[in-house]
Amino acid sequence: MTAYEDLMALERTSQALAQVAGRLGWDQETMMPRGAVEQRAEEAGSMQAILHARRTEARRGELLAAADAEATDEVERAQLRHMRRDYERATCVPQDLAIALARLTSKAQGQWAAARADDDFAAFSPVLAEVVRLKREEASALAEGGDLYDALLEDFEPGMKADRLDAIFAAMRPRLVELRGRALDAAWPNIAGHFDQQAQLQLSRKLAETFGYDLSRGRLDLAVHPFSSGSGDDVRITTRVSEADPFNCLYSTIHEVGHACYEQGIDAGYRLTPLGQGVSMGVHESQSRIYENQLGRSRAFCGWLYGRMRDAFGDLGVGDEDSFYRAVNRVHRGHIRTEADEIQYNLHIMLRYDLERALIAGDLMVADLEAAWNDRFNADFGYEVDRASNGVLQDVHWSVGLFGYFPTYSLGNVYAGCLHAKMRADIPGLDSQLAKGDLAAATAWLRSGVQCHGGLYEPNETITRACGFAPGPEPLLDYLETKFGALTR
Amino acid sequence: MTAYEDLMALERTSQALAQVAGRLGWDQETMMPRGAVEQRAEEAGSMQAILHARRTEARRGELLAAADAEATDEVERAQLRHMRRDYERATCVPQDLAIALARLTSKAQGQWAAARADDDFAAFSPVLAEVVRLKREEASALAEGGDLYDALLEDFEPGMKADRLDAIFAAMRPRLVELRGRALDAAWPNIAGHFDQQAQLQLSRKLAETFGYDLSRGRLDLAVHPFSSGSGDDVRITTRVSEADPFNCLYSTIHEVGHACYEQGIDAGYRLTPLGQGVSMGVHESQSRIYENQLGRSRAFCGWLYGRMRDAFGDLGVGDEDSFYRAVNRVHRGHIRTEADEIQYNLHIMLRYDLERALIAGDLMVADLEAAWNDRFNADFGYEVDRASNGVLQDVHWSVGLFGYFPTYSLGNVYAGCLHAKMRADIPGLDSQLAKGDLAAATAWLRSGVQCHGGLYEPNETITRACGFAPGPEPLLDYLETKFGALTR
Repeated sequence: MTAYEDLMALERTSQALAQVAGRLGWDQETMMPRGAVEQRAEEAGSMQAILHARRTEARRGELLAAADAEATDEVERAQLRHMRRDYERATCVPQDLAIALARLTSKAQGQWAAARADDDFAAFSPVLAEVVRLKREEASALAEGGDLYDALLEDFEPGMKADRLDAIFAAMRPRLVELRGRALDAAWPNIAGHFDQQAQLQLSRKLAETFGYDLSRGRLDLAVHPFSSGSGDDVRITTRVSEADPFNCLYSTIHEVGHACYEQGIDAGYRLTPLGQGVSMGVHESQSRIYENQLGRSRAFCGWLYGRMRDAFGDLGVGDEDSFYRAVNRVHRGHIRTEADEIQYNLHIMLRYDLERALIAGDLMVADLEAAWNDRFNADFGYEVDRASNGVLQDVHWSVGLFGYFPTYSLGNVYAGCLHAKMRADIPGLDSQLAKGDLAAATAWLRSGVQCHGGLYEPNETITRACGFAPGPEPLLDYLETKFGALTR
Repeated sequence: MTAYEDLMALERTSQALAQVAGRLGWDQETMMPRGAVEQRAEEAGSMQAILHARRTEARRGELLAAADAEATDEVERAQLRHMRRDYERATCVPQDLAIALARLTSKAQGQWAAARADDDFAAFSPVLAEVVRLKREEASALAEGGDLYDALLEDFEPGMKADRLDAIFAAMRPRLVELRGRALDAAWPNIAGHFDQQAQLQLSRKLAETFGYDLSRGRLDLAVHPFSSGSGDDVRITTRVSEADPFNCLYSTIHEVGHACYEQGIDAGYRLTPLGQGVSMGVHESQSRIYENQLGRSRAFCGWLYGRMRDAFGDLGVGDEDSFYRAVNRVHRGHIRTEADEIQYNLHIMLRYDLERALIAGDLMVADLEAAWNDRFNADFGYEVDRASNGVLQDVHWSVGLFGYFPTYSLGNVYAGCLHAKMRADIPGLDSQLAKGDLAAATAWLRSGVQCHGGLYEPNETITRACGFAPGPEPLLDYLETKFGALTR
């Protein structure tokens, strides 16, 4: 065996174990008995310890060095690139720090949940300060003298830098703010009724299949938070149901289906290798967003969905397809990121991005974070945060040490905007297909353009190759202005 | 840290990983998408490779040697005994052989399933011959000059020997045969109707709780084969439903609840240690059998169950509690072990035991196994085997290399007979409790007498301590003769 083959065999086992660890996470959110929490923490911790040991073992480093000269093609070079980056990042961080962070964030997540329930940021602040302290240490180890935030970003969006995000967000903000002003002045109907849980789940399943999710290699379950997990032939999604608000369930499902189709759509030859997963959080989010928004919330698709929802639930309290389309795209005031519309969502992200950059830079203390959040929210949205669970405590991310993750949500929107522009150019009859609930051409386009490549190309290159141009915010902004311009005319 | 502490830390991680591997098996039988089969094989194989490497690593051997002098009490000595036995057995078998066996049995199981579907033993015979060949090699490595079958038995029932089993079965056979003769001459009513799946599952859940299964630390799902999996705070069971035969579901549930309560009942201090699981297959089966048979099929409990089943399903086509009790304990001709009554079940086991001993001894060739099975069945049961799926292909065990496992089923019955005799002596009012569906005293007795100890005592000692006498077949035979004597009078 060559060093490359040895390395890939080693990696294949690690990838398989990572899938097992992921499945354990899925189980925890869907199936695990409530009394198993403590034992599960130990089981999951043991899996993480094994995975960490495998990531950092010396033999891996030796094989990586030896395999370098052996790579003969683009695929092998890409495999090595992923493994080398993973190895270097894992070995950069002292093991004591990695263990301390894992322990601390596990504790911090529990304290965050309790503090959110009590609307009490002060109860969460000390442990978050400790998380920030350790994340800054980790970033220092990773940055090797460079920008701390960039070093963290690299884990979620390889190749992306804060400077580039600054430029993207600066271009987005004024146009989004202008658009929001008009949109908030318009009238937005809402649907009304009681929407049976079983009927929502049945329609969710139908939507999942409509969007190309292969249920023979996945499954749909209920969980507190919608998510997608797993790669290859076992990619599972969850959704949630509110019997007052079916859009929550249906559009969460479409969103997760986007993530899941990405994983299911990767070239089968990359299965259980470093190329066998979505290449970055931003590209992942581009798939979930284009399924959910550009396709799922389009006028054409809403026409079809209106029929299916009337079949499932009877009268929806809106008179026609146009009103239904307006209800789906309703723009409204609100504090919560995950409930935001396509325009305001990105403003929620910019707020978090600026605050977390300041935290990691050491320019903002955690003790001052709640006040900073509330000031900034008022400045950006024009009304007060009424309680911490509607403000600084609303998201789990920081409690579990995810700094550098938030901007990838907006980056996903930006990528989705670019892909959508090119998709429209390539599929002239798209709207007439969407109006019939026919997503085949759109999802095939995404599969062959983006999904099949897995980790073969770097994130930016993945999008550039699919679009024929380098990604930037303009296509998204043009799309939003056209769409909401028409809706607020 | 002392060597003992080091060793226990190492072991704790291995135990946690083993729980994860077990959960993966549960997932495969209950939740896994059907398209994930191949990927799952690789995931499960990776977990097994990790576990095997940990079982056999040199450091474990060194720590075991060093820790020997450190054990200060019964518990520590028992922990060391388990780890030493596990280490010695794992290192005895050459790694190439262990890998070859794992690969072969995975393939053989598939071929067995296909051959069973086709009623074609010849299609399965070559791979089974190979399994037997490797199992004999494994047994030679383990036996160190001793009896090959005893060496295999040790994996399922430590301390048990074939000589002792021979004596037990020799004592059982004539009395069982005599009893069966009378029972087959008697009339046995059967219940009739259509038994709704949901109602069966609801009643199963109620029965599970009645027998003391803690659903906050477990769950009940559907699967093709009923089983129990996991230890400690996450012990899950499955059942299956036939809408024509509710006893299948209900008594499978009670049986698995017996296994699950054993695991849930083990001293919490032993969690994720070698003492934290049931001590042997035979003792495990004693718990499932006493729940299912001595308690669940008793006249008193059947009176209560009759009421619950009438509540759930309406008229059952039997006139009264006595007829219902007869229906539950129906004795009938049949080829299938898992459908056998309390009397004939053990005769099915003896057939398998004698055949597998001959295979391992080299006295019977796999090529002659089907004929040997059919001859022996006719001799033991008095009628022909009509097809291989009703004969030599009915059980999965041999295909996956489980030689030495079958006798533990009857041993479980024998142990259950002993425990039941002592339980009756200790709980004089038991029948009046069972008649009210009150299992609290019976299950508490089993918990404190057997279950809580986990692996603290060797199997034989576990039963001896609970009963106050050394286990033998007489209490079981007395119980069966009394019960079926009354039923055939």
